[in-house]
Amino acid sequence: MTTTETLLTGAALIGGTDVPGSGEPFQAVNPATGAALEPVFRPTAEDDVARAAELAHAAFKVYRHTGFEQRATFLERIAAELEALGDTLVERVIAETGLPEPRVRGEVGRTTGQLRLFAAVVREGSWTGARLDTPDPARTPLPKPDLRQRRIPLGPVAVFAASNFPLAFSVAGGDTASALAAGAPVVVKAHPAHPGTSELVGRAVRSAVRGCDLPEGTFSLVHGGVEPGLALVRHPRIAAVGFTGSRRGGLALVAAAAARPVPIPVFAEMSSVNPVFVLPGALAERGAELGAEFVASLTTGVGQLCTSPGLVFLAEGPGADEFVAAASAAVGAAAAAPMLNVGIAAAFTDGVRRLTGSAGVRTAATGTGTSDTCTGVPHLFVTDEARFAADPALREEVFGPSSIVVRASADRLPALAAELEGQLTATVHAAAGDCEQAGALLDELELIAGRVLFDGWPTGVEVGHAVVHGGPFPATSAPATTSVGSLAIERFLRPVAYQNVPDALLAPELRAANPLGIPRRVDGSLTGD
Amino acid sequence: MTTTETLLTGAALIGGTDVPGSGEPFQAVNPATGAALEPVFRPTAEDDVARAAELAHAAFKVYRHTGFEQRATFLERIAAELEALGDTLVERVIAETGLPEPRVRGEVGRTTGQLRLFAAVVREGSWTGARLDTPDPARTPLPKPDLRQRRIPLGPVAVFAASNFPLAFSVAGGDTASALAAGAPVVVKAHPAHPGTSELVGRAVRSAVRGCDLPEGTFSLVHGGVEPGLALVRHPRIAAVGFTGSRRGGLALVAAAAARPVPIPVFAEMSSVNPVFVLPGALAERGAELGAEFVASLTTGVGQLCTSPGLVFLAEGPGADEFVAAASAAVGAAAAAPMLNVGIAAAFTDGVRRLTGSAGVRTAATGTGTSDTCTGVPHLFVTDEARFAADPALREEVFGPSSIVVRASADRLPALAAELEGQLTATVHAAAGDCEQAGALLDELELIAGRVLFDGWPTGVEVGHAVVHGGPFPATSAPATTSVGSLAIERFLRPVAYQNVPDALLAPELRAANPLGIPRRVDGSLTGD
Repeated sequence: MTTTETLLTGAALIGGTDVPGSGEPFQAVNPATGAALEPVFRPTAEDDVARAAELAHAAFKVYRHTGFEQRATFLERIAAELEALGDTLVERVIAETGLPEPRVRGEVGRTTGQLRLFAAVVREGSWTGARLDTPDPARTPLPKPDLRQRRIPLGPVAVFAASNFPLAFSVAGGDTASALAAGAPVVVKAHPAHPGTSELVGRAVRSAVRGCDLPEGTFSLVHGGVEPGLALVRHPRIAAVGFTGSRRGGLALVAAAAARPVPIPVFAEMSSVNPVFVLPGALAERGAELGAEFVASLTTGVGQLCTSPGLVFLAEGPGADEFVAAASAAVGAAAAAPMLNVGIAAAFTDGVRRLTGSAGVRTAATGTGTSDTCTGVPHLFVTDEARFAADPALREEVFGPSSIVVRASADRLPALAAELEGQLTATVHAAAGDCEQAGALLDELELIAGRVLFDGWPTGVEVGHAVVHGGPFPATSAPATTSVGSLAIERFLRPVAYQNVPDALLAPELRAANPLGIPRRVDGSLTGD
Repeated sequence: MTTTETLLTGAALIGGTDVPGSGEPFQAVNPATGAALEPVFRPTAEDDVARAAELAHAAFKVYRHTGFEQRATFLERIAAELEALGDTLVERVIAETGLPEPRVRGEVGRTTGQLRLFAAVVREGSWTGARLDTPDPARTPLPKPDLRQRRIPLGPVAVFAASNFPLAFSVAGGDTASALAAGAPVVVKAHPAHPGTSELVGRAVRSAVRGCDLPEGTFSLVHGGVEPGLALVRHPRIAAVGFTGSRRGGLALVAAAAARPVPIPVFAEMSSVNPVFVLPGALAERGAELGAEFVASLTTGVGQLCTSPGLVFLAEGPGADEFVAAASAAVGAAAAAPMLNVGIAAAFTDGVRRLTGSAGVRTAATGTGTSDTCTGVPHLFVTDEARFAADPALREEVFGPSSIVVRASADRLPALAAELEGQLTATVHAAAGDCEQAGALLDELELIAGRVLFDGWPTGVEVGHAVVHGGPFPATSAPATTSVGSLAIERFLRPVAYQNVPDALLAPELRAANPLGIPRRVDGSLTGD
């Protein structure tokens, strides 16, 4: 049974209460038509942001003690509430983002899939990191104490929704799912480009909170831009921040969090150009084919994916011309398409203009159609190794369907890789004869990227247990973590040791009898006890 | 076979080369006699600090690929080299720190024990966090890729040695052992109060580097204070920082690391007052006994332990007077003792003077003997709940043998706990009848501390798998980690995912056949495969 309301009101959801905003009104805009969408939203007032944080703190005292089964059921209930929204949700997402229907339906499935993945993770229980060291009261000169360790949630988490995944990296996306799985209440700051989607999803989460008899402060949703966002990060009850978006936005939150009297971690996924390296054998074998595949990846989602391939290094030699020709033809045939919003389209147009006028950079192809205020025209640029080395601006992300091909000598590829900034992904195309060079490249790429992939394309992030969607700075502000996949739960936990604490006072995951039957490390050994 | 030189030269060890310092000379001072100890040391020049970082970077390319067995053997070799120093090392530590011989011999054992613990951790292999998700090429609409995940070392680590554990938290201490175990080369900044101990231990580590045929940059040792330390943290080749020391020092490193073009993590263990809560039943049952035990913990190591109990909350009622009387008697009988150095002694004397003159705070007892420039006289202060609430200065750490007893109503103890800053430890003394109150207190204490202990005293940190020596800010700058115990290795690692990477190019821990036989998570399940 699901109970979500589908009427949009423009209100923030402060725990169980609908709270209208104040200040400058704003509306979502349909990027395909330019039409403003009802209703009107207003930024949530600072007092209401503070109330959401206080309610989250109050809820934390209860929610962190929920049993694994109860918490898993809650996550599954959110997934069911989202599915119950059906076409209402899909239509609103399309209207607010211009994304094509199959992509939106796919993203619904990814979002509910993530929630169910974390339900399974919670039940499995090894996320608690339970460790027991057997005491030895007879040890000399000092008795060995009874030490047990588990991870507990940090406290309420502020989640900043992304513009480019209105569901999977938004109100009930991966950050929210992993924080709730960890036992942390969540306050989401909706992205102002899709406030209606956010309200619909927020109401679905609230229905699940009610349906599972959880404290109202387990989830809140606030609206607006910089001000409510900073108020949230600065609030003393907030213990951690999840963010997906621009480098500028992420770094502003990192700075605000570090300046607090008690600093808190910010898990910001920011910018990446996702370099691709095509080795001689692969180019010789199928240069033209790879060129076409590359453009299919580049234009996926109008290039508005964190993992879009913005930089391709081609080993100079047989097949390189064919790669460039095929990629140019594919870009030349690709149509201009509506981008997510006018801000993103304007930034893309600026980035493309900068590259177009750049010395030593040739515009190899542009897509069909013309750029208007909310449209992105695909662009392909070509340069050489020397020019690339000389111009640091060529390493900067242009968010949208634009990429630069760098033609370089094959033996220089590992050195070029080593000089890149941190990346979410790095890709290698190699044929059988490229093995030695591929190994040398992998050796460099694993040091700069969160995910290294062979013979594929970086767009399309598989949600599972082994994935990493993260990477060294500036791809993220927290390279030791991932924002996608089951490992993401670890961001919101910290270890606590219990020394000689009576069994009856310990959480079930640490009791001697292991009543939850979870995997635990006993005296350093993973026994599955 | 061990090969360590025992002659002290005053040089920094920049990889395999002895490099004299420049600038203001300094010498260790024997705190028991005030005598300056040979040889003369000088701060390492910035160029030499940079060379140590560059050598570490070069070594990283080789050292990170060492096999688990080779790396474990190296750690064991360091332990053997330390043991081979025998009395030479023990005598120098005593001369530089004034610590009693049994404590120093115990610390040698703790340090070698840590190195051997991390050798075992490396061999066991689950620190790699290996995860494999099985591919499904037939899946629709998209094939499921082959994803495998492991953790790799961040890069060269800068370790800042602590003054109060000249071996266990110093040149070859827990930070160094865990970084080397993770596959990260180490550059240590020696503590200027025990430079001779640092050189001896540094030479032992260098002998192990040579004995194991590792690159010289695997380990370097630099000398001096703020300047070489900041030069190290700011160097682009340094990827992470381990620190144990003062809040001011730790926060300076955090700020320097955050201001880099590429920020890096700082794992700083800083300050803690380690609150103790004594519940009514425990007080009534054994108030006097607990008071005496408390002072034994407080005066251990002349109070110069991170976990020294600086704050005791007594539940007002039967036994509270007896606790205070016994503690006062014990402090009154405790002798003044040499502190580690004049800086620590001066800060302690200042802290005690501030409390002595504080309104509403009674000096319950002072130890025997007189304070001189390098001596600490134990002090016990008593105040009440209202005064404690009114004066935030009473929550500040006074590093040394000084503690404040706060008499409070039993039902207020959980609220008092909730208002405290982050702590390394929190302690509860409870009798059978205190169970309900103990549970309420535990519920608050696990949120503010890294280790919660019952019916014991916080000094004495057991090194094992389940221990946490860490905690919320300001106890540390990185609450999701520990600086003691096997979990400490995780600080210097980050996850990387490998997508469709050929088996032959993968590290052994991720190959299909699991040639190392380590525990791995396959499709989310810990199979031990």
